[in-house]
Amino acid sequence: MTAPTPPAPDGLAVWAPAGLPEIRPGDDLARLVGDVLADAGGLVDGDVVAVTSKVVSKAEGRVLAAADREEAIADQTVRVVATRERPGQPPLRIVENPQGLVMAAAGVDASNTPDGTVLLLPVDPDASARTLRAALAARFGVRLAVVLTDTAGRAWREGLVDIAIGAAGLQVLDDLRGSVDAHGRPLTVTVTAVADEVAAATELVRGKSAGRPVAVVRGLGRYVTHDDGPGARALVRPAEADLFREGTDLAYARGYADGAAGRPPRD
Amino acid sequence: MTAPTPPAPDGLAVWAPAGLPEIRPGDDLARLVGDVLADAGGLVDGDVVAVTSKVVSKAEGRVLAAADREEAIADQTVRVVATRERPGQPPLRIVENPQGLVMAAAGVDASNTPDGTVLLLPVDPDASARTLRAALAARFGVRLAVVLTDTAGRAWREGLVDIAIGAAGLQVLDDLRGSVDAHGRPLTVTVTAVADEVAAATELVRGKSAGRPVAVVRGLGRYVTHDDGPGARALVRPAEADLFREGTDLAYARGYADGAAGRPPRD
Repeated sequence: MTAPTPPAPDGLAVWAPAGLPEIRPGDDLARLVGDVLADAGGLVDGDVVAVTSKVVSKAEGRVLAAADREEAIADQTVRVVATRERPGQPPLRIVENPQGLVMAAAGVDASNTPDGTVLLLPVDPDASARTLRAALAARFGVRLAVVLTDTAGRAWREGLVDIAIGAAGLQVLDDLRGSVDAHGRPLTVTVTAVADEVAAATELVRGKSAGRPVAVVRGLGRYVTHDDGPGARALVRPAEADLFREGTDLAYARGYADGAAGRPPRD
Repeated sequence: MTAPTPPAPDGLAVWAPAGLPEIRPGDDLARLVGDVLADAGGLVDGDVVAVTSKVVSKAEGRVLAAADREEAIADQTVRVVATRERPGQPPLRIVENPQGLVMAAAGVDASNTPDGTVLLLPVDPDASARTLRAALAARFGVRLAVVLTDTAGRAWREGLVDIAIGAAGLQVLDDLRGSVDAHGRPLTVTVTAVADEVAAATELVRGKSAGRPVAVVRGLGRYVTHDDGPGARALVRPAEADLFREGTDLAYARGYADGAAGRPPRD
């Protein structure tokens, strides 16, 4: 897939160039991603490059034997958020991982990995994004942003969407709270999760089985910053501020135990 | 904004044509949206047209006096999911509404509405999407999909993203569970929420204050169906299947009360 003709002003073009080889531990991912982008026509000022966290994990050697999967999930668990028994399978565990992300199986990934292995997420996805950004900016000589994507479930909604777990050079949140609507009234509650919307848009061109872990979004230059910015960590809501920091069943059971034991209520 | 040149094969173009007038109750929204699309170059086979639920609500006359806002929220509440006190404001109420959606303030909207009014969501967003789809398909003579978008918060993540609350002619979920990854192993858990990713992508071109409630995504023809399909209702996870059907504090308090009263545990 070569670079599309840029869309009309204010429009976006989103595409996923083919050609990235299977990534192995120690590979120079920035060079390989850059080669794919160069073959597809290069980058222009304001482009956003999205890379799946999976290939970053592979390059960074975050690979374990699959036999260690349950141990890896336990090891990547900072806090259990919810669990559910599943017949004939290990229980579903939704947990907060060291990256602050609330994900099923702590984000430990067993699909699209070499046989007999599982992948851990990058240790510091924002740092990985910054490294990629610096290398691609140097190579192409343009201002660009990098987003690391992963696939995540949601409360209340069926299906998975891609979210941003790492970012560099992108305004990850667009805070409109100081602005006014078309009627001149304050937009009091609107803070848009730009980086997550970028990740979702790129999933649509990437596909899960198509082997295209790199995508480009052209037309979002207004969100591309000169410095690296706060990264995707700014999209993580701290547990103490979250109304869903613990699943319904676990919270109910904890309350029940406290009530039955005559302890004072907590939280 | 006129129609962009279509992107390379498998790529997307996303744009938001300007020119939709302020919508009033009783307006023929399909005609007005069609005029905007026609002025921007028309539609081609496989296009997805996204329209904010806000303009659909306005056309359908889902307008109330703002003084009735708290009453409207109570009226649109099927089930309280979580609440939080806020100094100097009415409490934040996250509830399930009649459309099945879990949203702050039940989705009752006070921004970008005429002064002194609030908007309720369309009664049946999937039906509204089907009506728009039929009218646009007849006018442009192409196979297309329609998505109704709204802006929603998430558990665990800062910022809001647009989601699909209505859909017609779109495969809203892409179930990859029967397919295999690049290593020939089953993709066991991947069901992609395509319609939500489409909604998120269109938010990036629409902007909150830009007054462009219509957007087009070109390049997703593989997800555009001949029939209307299940609609966005299929994206709603039933409460009984949801591990976060009740917020942490409410579930804890309910458990505590049951435990303290010596009642048997429920759920």
